[in-house]
Amino acid sequence: MKNLLVREGSDLLVSRTRQEENTRVNIKGCVVGGEETVVIAGPCAIENEDLLKETAFKVRASGASMLRGGAYKPRTSPYSFQGHGEEGLKILARVGQEMNMPVVTEVMDSEDIELVAEYSDALQVGARNMYNYSMLKKLGRLNKPVVLKRGLSATIEEWLLAAEYVLAGGNGQVIMCERGIRTAEPWTRNTIDLSGVALVKELSHLPVMVDPSHGTGVRSLVTPMARAALAAGADGLMVEVHPHPEKAVSDGPQSLTPRGFSQLMREIEPIARACGRRIK
Amino acid sequence: MKNLLVREGSDLLVSRTRQEENTRVNIKGCVVGGEETVVIAGPCAIENEDLLKETAFKVRASGASMLRGGAYKPRTSPYSFQGHGEEGLKILARVGQEMNMPVVTEVMDSEDIELVAEYSDALQVGARNMYNYSMLKKLGRLNKPVVLKRGLSATIEEWLLAAEYVLAGGNGQVIMCERGIRTAEPWTRNTIDLSGVALVKELSHLPVMVDPSHGTGVRSLVTPMARAALAAGADGLMVEVHPHPEKAVSDGPQSLTPRGFSQLMREIEPIARACGRRIK
Amino acid sequence: MKNLLVREGSDLLVSRTRQEENTRVNIKGCVVGGEETVVIAGPCAIENEDLLKETAFKVRASGASMLRGGAYKPRTSPYSFQGHGEEGLKILARVGQEMNMPVVTEVMDSEDIELVAEYSDALQVGARNMYNYSMLKKLGRLNKPVVLKRGLSATIEEWLLAAEYVLAGGNGQVIMCERGIRTAEPWTRNTIDLSGVALVKELSHLPVMVDPSHGTGVRSLVTPMARAALAAGADGLMVEVHPHPEKAVSDGPQSLTPRGFSQLMREIEPIARACGRRIK
Amino acid sequence: MKNLLVREGSDLLVSRTRQEENTRVNIKGCVVGGEETVVIAGPCAIENEDLLKETAFKVRASGASMLRGGAYKPRTSPYSFQGHGEEGLKILARVGQEMNMPVVTEVMDSEDIELVAEYSDALQVGARNMYNYSMLKKLGRLNKPVVLKRGLSATIEEWLLAAEYVLAGGNGQVIMCERGIRTAEPWTRNTIDLSGVALVKELSHLPVMVDPSHGTGVRSLVTPMARAALAAGADGLMVEVHPHPEKAVSDGPQSLTPRGFSQLMREIEPIARACGRRIK
Repeated sequence: MKNLLVREGSDLLVSRTRQEENTRVNIKGCVVGGEETVVIAGPCAIENEDLLKETAFKVRASGASMLRGGAYKPRTSPYSFQGHGEEGLKILARVGQEMNMPVVTEVMDSEDIELVAEYSDALQVGARNMYNYSMLKKLGRLNKPVVLKRGLSATIEEWLLAAEYVLAGGNGQVIMCERGIRTAEPWTRNTIDLSGVALVKELSHLPVMVDPSHGTGVRSLVTPMARAALAAGADGLMVEVHPHPEKAVSDGPQSLTPRGFSQLMREIEPIARACGRRIK
Repeated sequence: MKNLLVREGSDLLVSRTRQEENTRVNIKGCVVGGEETVVIAGPCAIENEDLLKETAFKVRASGASMLRGGAYKPRTSPYSFQGHGEEGLKILARVGQEMNMPVVTEVMDSEDIELVAEYSDALQVGARNMYNYSMLKKLGRLNKPVVLKRGLSATIEEWLLAAEYVLAGGNGQVIMCERGIRTAEPWTRNTIDLSGVALVKELSHLPVMVDPSHGTGVRSLVTPMARAALAAGADGLMVEVHPHPEKAVSDGPQSLTPRGFSQLMREIEPIARACGRRIK
Repeated sequence: MKNLLVREGSDLLVSRTRQEENTRVNIKGCVVGGEETVVIAGPCAIENEDLLKETAFKVRASGASMLRGGAYKPRTSPYSFQGHGEEGLKILARVGQEMNMPVVTEVMDSEDIELVAEYSDALQVGARNMYNYSMLKKLGRLNKPVVLKRGLSATIEEWLLAAEYVLAGGNGQVIMCERGIRTAEPWTRNTIDLSGVALVKELSHLPVMVDPSHGTGVRSLVTPMARAALAAGADGLMVEVHPHPEKAVSDGPQSLTPRGFSQLMREIEPIARACGRRIK
Repeated sequence: MKNLLVREGSDLLVSRTRQEENTRVNIKGCVVGGEETVVIAGPCAIENEDLLKETAFKVRASGASMLRGGAYKPRTSPYSFQGHGEEGLKILARVGQEMNMPVVTEVMDSEDIELVAEYSDALQVGARNMYNYSMLKKLGRLNKPVVLKRGLSATIEEWLLAAEYVLAGGNGQVIMCERGIRTAEPWTRNTIDLSGVALVKELSHLPVMVDPSHGTGVRSLVTPMARAALAAGADGLMVEVHPHPEKAVSDGPQSLTPRGFSQLMREIEPIARACGRRIK
């Protein structure tokens, strides 16, 4: 009964029985779900324009297709840095334009959807908001791609049904993003569930990305898990990169330096090729 | 490092080192956190006025202090019943007034806070929205009690820090509500963590309730876990009651009948007394 | 399908549909599963005879019925203290006899069953060996009570079926012991699942104890959880007590002092009474 | 503190700070941990000689290096098929010899170690016995390779320390095998933790294999996860193959047919090559 909704014969909009061919989500010319492996890179939080520009320049040079960066940050403590808000969005939009890279950033409140959509080419729903059904409904009425991260302990079915909320509203441009589930393992921040990636690719036509940075929380594991993600069938990666991780306002320990990111790009290339993909 | 923020010496607003005596949250004369064990009862969803009135009448007769019922329902599937919205709020307010019972209901969207606050004596933040920091900040500026459920896989520290978001905004009327965490045990819907209840009572001055209905998902386990919750130190209970659970639009399997609820009230009474409490 | 074996109509030996009345396990005159709440107390490991005697004397004075202590210790590291082995067993047997208390200790290897049975009145299977089916089969051929701890992440069904291994061999004297399951919560060592206790009491006729010491790993939570366990329906408790917890070779942080244990006994008494039980 | 033992500077025998180069475990000429990707294949349980021979013949033709099959089966229920015991071991040994394939099988009891070692080229410790320290100590005195599966909810540190028990006894021929950890996800039997694989390769010199059959419990996910495992750095795979999965006495739903296995071998080949490995 638990898995009823997404089984064979399901008539959910997200289901492969409803649509056999892969959905391709086009973010300003950057297509997720097609022949190319798409890599989104950038800092956890947008700190200032120079830093973002430096990062963008370097990750683009290494082969990243899109730029990420948070203007609204969901932080466990109310006293931690909460992001620069609209000012951050403006910086992101300017840098994206200058570097000619599509940008993606997180929306944390249904009241902010329109504002975020004004500056960003795709809206990210973070793991903490995957169950924010009210916000998902509103994103369903938007004409912009949505990157939907899996909840901290969400089942595959709940995740697919969260996507269904968006599709049911009329917005079919959804990219699923696995970012690790919470387990009792203390070494890693989360446990990346790559069988979940393979399963979503089987059950659904939606494209799937993996975020090995949040998924592991450990710098040295980002590249091996990026390789594994592609081999499991992922259509792309989302990677945190910061020029000076030791000074990052958040998520330093899992951020790659631009040099580390360049190394990652070199190391995923043979795997992408073995999967019949090329890296944009 | 993980537990840094709520250790001894913490200057968080939620911390007992900051305020030694228990906070008492007064919901229209019904005090949570004092000598009385407060029981909130009612159906999962508000289905119609007659049903709610019948339920309210019966649970009040058995000793419930407050009435609950959902007008906005966070459902896994977009095609499940989503609640009657504002119409449901009006029904709840009318029945509460008629029965002279304070009412509590869930708010799912920061845009609905004012509307819900107009009709309800306390606002519940559901488990799925515990990390909705944007909504928590807005609830911090409200002058109404907040019942904050623990997230599906939230740690105690994350839960206390979610409460801190509300307190930091200026609203100190927060009631913590344990409703089970997600584990691999398939017999129960969730696993109630009563050590978490005892721990929050130790670390914080905020009152704590337990929801044994969602916490177990199994009717026969509701009363034993209600007893256990009180013995662990809980200040109150939130229990789902439906006159005809087999016809309930949601959560039937875990709902007590009014007769079952009356039995629960009789069975918790000696435990409450052994804890030096009386049941209002 | 997952829960098939222990549902209604089950003909498992552990099932209440097979035997309606509660099983009472008699450990040298100390009956678990009857009107009395049985408390087993003692140090994690048997360190030396004087210390054990001192502990036994004090916990007996406070009302403990049985003495516990480990001669074989399952330690995560091969370089940690592994227990005194047979020498420890001899100390335990001597102190038990002198104090006139039945003793229980852990068996870690099917090859040691006979040796342990020679010195001990009941044999404990630790959480790490709950799936050691080979050892369970051999315990089924023994004529001594078995205390079967729940595995670190065992489901209720797996736990009951582990007991079935013992009963199927002909040994019906099994006491189930909940000691917490592993979750992502870092404050507590494990998460005690009291709904599991209530569920086993419902599904099975076997007596159930709770170990709030291992279950929480935090001294201040032992008494609240002991109270909660009894209110949930537990037939007894297993509690770690050490005269000098700060010097204990293992599990110091969760051990009560004899004075703390005496306090626990006073605090569980009204709950036991509210449950219609007396404490031996 | 939790991760103390395996951090940098650790002097554990399993640690890479103690031995920089990879350990290569030689199982009768088949080397795990070297340039080749080793694939062990065979049925969950040894049912009869003809079936095993048919399976061995076919998996060898597709490129499997070693044969697996269970003679002692750890089953949740005492009434499920428990394996053919010594008779099964003899069948395995004969078929291995005839096919010229090294064989590996599980040992479930410290009393059976010598018997199993007589017939098998490597001994597998199953997930349920990873904490069976008593058995691990005895395996440390054996001169045969040990395949050590990760426990159902074991942390990486516990798993490495379980290996340390074997190494400390003098037996350095240990192969780690990830087989999925238990989570709340109901679609898959377990959740394969490939970051754990990458982490063990980083922290330790021991070779690591992955069992995508038990790890997922779902036939269609075995090949994607086999590919992902190699990309994450695994030295080999252990795969369940049965000529007629629908008639298998255990684990049918996750077993590949010989044809499915042949397909798997074709699909992992480009990934192995991209990792600079060849498949024996």
